[in-house]
Amino acid sequence: MSLVVQKYGGSSVADAEKIKNVARRVAKAKDDGNDIVVVVSAMGDTTDELVGLAYQMSEQPGARELDVLLSTGEIVSSTLLAIALGDMGYKAISLSGAQAGIRTDTAHSRARILGIDPKRLLRELKQGKIVIVAGFQGVTEEMDTTTLGRGGSDTTAVALAAGLKADRCEIFTDVEGIYTADPHLAPEAHSLPEIGYEEMLELATYGARVMHPRAVELGEIFSIPIRVASSFSDNPGTMIHGGMSMEARNKVTGIAHDMDVAKITVVGVPDRPGIASSIFQPLAKAGISVDTIVQNASIENVTDLTFTVAKGELKKAMKVVKPIAEGIGARQCASDSRLGKVSIIGTGMQNTPGFAARMFQALSEEGINIQLITTSEIRITCIIDEASIGEAVRALHTAFELEQAE
Amino acid sequence: MSLVVQKYGGSSVADAEKIKNVARRVAKAKDDGNDIVVVVSAMGDTTDELVGLAYQMSEQPGARELDVLLSTGEIVSSTLLAIALGDMGYKAISLSGAQAGIRTDTAHSRARILGIDPKRLLRELKQGKIVIVAGFQGVTEEMDTTTLGRGGSDTTAVALAAGLKADRCEIFTDVEGIYTADPHLAPEAHSLPEIGYEEMLELATYGARVMHPRAVELGEIFSIPIRVASSFSDNPGTMIHGGMSMEARNKVTGIAHDMDVAKITVVGVPDRPGIASSIFQPLAKAGISVDTIVQNASIENVTDLTFTVAKGELKKAMKVVKPIAEGIGARQCASDSRLGKVSIIGTGMQNTPGFAARMFQALSEEGINIQLITTSEIRITCIIDEASIGEAVRALHTAFELEQAE
Repeated sequence: MSLVVQKYGGSSVADAEKIKNVARRVAKAKDDGNDIVVVVSAMGDTTDELVGLAYQMSEQPGARELDVLLSTGEIVSSTLLAIALGDMGYKAISLSGAQAGIRTDTAHSRARILGIDPKRLLRELKQGKIVIVAGFQGVTEEMDTTTLGRGGSDTTAVALAAGLKADRCEIFTDVEGIYTADPHLAPEAHSLPEIGYEEMLELATYGARVMHPRAVELGEIFSIPIRVASSFSDNPGTMIHGGMSMEARNKVTGIAHDMDVAKITVVGVPDRPGIASSIFQPLAKAGISVDTIVQNASIENVTDLTFTVAKGELKKAMKVVKPIAEGIGARQCASDSRLGKVSIIGTGMQNTPGFAARMFQALSEEGINIQLITTSEIRITCIIDEASIGEAVRALHTAFELEQAE
Repeated sequence: MSLVVQKYGGSSVADAEKIKNVARRVAKAKDDGNDIVVVVSAMGDTTDELVGLAYQMSEQPGARELDVLLSTGEIVSSTLLAIALGDMGYKAISLSGAQAGIRTDTAHSRARILGIDPKRLLRELKQGKIVIVAGFQGVTEEMDTTTLGRGGSDTTAVALAAGLKADRCEIFTDVEGIYTADPHLAPEAHSLPEIGYEEMLELATYGARVMHPRAVELGEIFSIPIRVASSFSDNPGTMIHGGMSMEARNKVTGIAHDMDVAKITVVGVPDRPGIASSIFQPLAKAGISVDTIVQNASIENVTDLTFTVAKGELKKAMKVVKPIAEGIGARQCASDSRLGKVSIIGTGMQNTPGFAARMFQALSEEGINIQLITTSEIRITCIIDEASIGEAVRALHTAFELEQAE
């Protein structure tokens, strides 16, 4: 008998009919002879509606109260699924994050899981019950409810799979798996049968948006095989795991993109120690996430420093950076908010220079100007004009022959 | 410094504006120098909506899951009130029933409170916080959520007041207090400045519907003075307490009525031991609440047995009673569902025969036929034609001079 943790996202439990559909899928997995733990998100737009209510009360709702408020969304969907399964004749029980033993720190609205105390959960499983756990939430030592922030329910599922030593974790969502590129931009994109954690991480971070990187990381650390599939079909989806076959390596797995990119360039920065820190520490203090950072080789002890932030953060970031730039004697501080990011992802790219060249050539053949380049071991990213992202994704998808289903 | 427990019902927290209104009232009570514990119901129709969702999943939703589901309604309103108070600069914290230490038995959907463990609540109060408790819910020893059933939030408030040894309990609702009669029927009815627990119990049971009898009972047992007032005005409302002045006794306090009355008469019952039990035990087993029971003195060892049930239960009750009536050799089994009940409530009535006479005369002057009469120490009830209830309430209100404000 296998122990399987399944997670169903908000769009999969958006209304009564969809919850019943999920109940049938869960029942089938149980009938197949597995022990089943199900993690659910809140129904459809519930979380947004609750946030809306909170903001009607205050422009700055207290984080502790907001967490308790939001946690009710997942409790509602978990009880409804348990009721639906009960109606089908299955023994099912819903547990809150607290009851499922998901212990977190006290960082409300973005709590980190400290550990899983699965006593209650294991007891219910032993009684033959299907256990439904409210995702996205945990509990502090004081027994106060916390929420896990972005990707919370994915993280709940993978953390439970790790804590319960589950055989696998299945993330059900509204897409067919992890695609070679966004099918809205590249119609020939297709779902990958498998992908490594690292590549998935890059794809998730750089725009796949199917599964949160935080949950993928957790899966990698605890070696939990994760299947990502649609809750509306029976297709196998994509298996994320560590043991990729040799043949799957040394090739591009997918194309990721991100439209939410703004750039700040500090021009004519004197090249001396401490300069970078004098700019980035105040940004961090202001809570602004800096993404890509590029510093050119300096000429005559003067260099240009460019970095990117989310578009919504640009104004705030400029307010922080401008006075600092003046203070350190930089010549100018320029910004551009109409940018996007396109990346190729694949293992072993760093050892294969041909990938970068082929990427740059494909973009150049479309007449796309590359503004910034960054690379990691398994990713090459170009910052380009926002308007060219669609073309770029399609061109790269073709250039790396991703349209051929494997 | 006084410790005050306030309770706001669903209509008082029905939307964002109303919750802000409640926040202002709570803040004022805090500014007056009191320690404040607030109990809230779910917003407006939330509970009905959640029940509706559950019944979309199953015609018989499991009681444990239904309780967890319904409990979210009060958690939502409690966090919103805490957020609103936080926005006004007050330290406020919401607690679930579990966190507030409301321990119950495991009878889901109608749990009884076993005790209050106020440690956490007292700690928060000591820190100067306004504590908002989600009403209607508690927690079993296993840390499973329960709901308290009808009158749950009122019961939460009075139980907390008892457990915390509060100076008083204030129930805020959408009416101005306890009226001498239903103002919809008797326009001259007015709010009573005070009333004893027992009379309030009779009024609540017999149709005042402002506060649940269960909570009044609890108030009486623990001698908690309870103020019932409107959350939309500053009128003092009605104080329910035990120490009524001598002058307030030996008079009629109010007129109660109930439209939901159906009657079953078993005609020609042989008058021998065990007959009543042979009828009422099966009714109890079928879950049918029998209200008034009247058995006439027997003539030639044959008697008529009449009892009332809620209209919605009549069909079911007849199904149970008919075969039994035949079995014991009764002559006939008749029913009437177009009935109502009107009562006069007041202390010391049993020792003052004049009350009953005056009541019957007032009804007779209106040409109203009395079908059944029952009495308790502080109540005389007549079952009459449903269509005459309005007239009866007005006639009795006048006959007992209740229109004169005290």
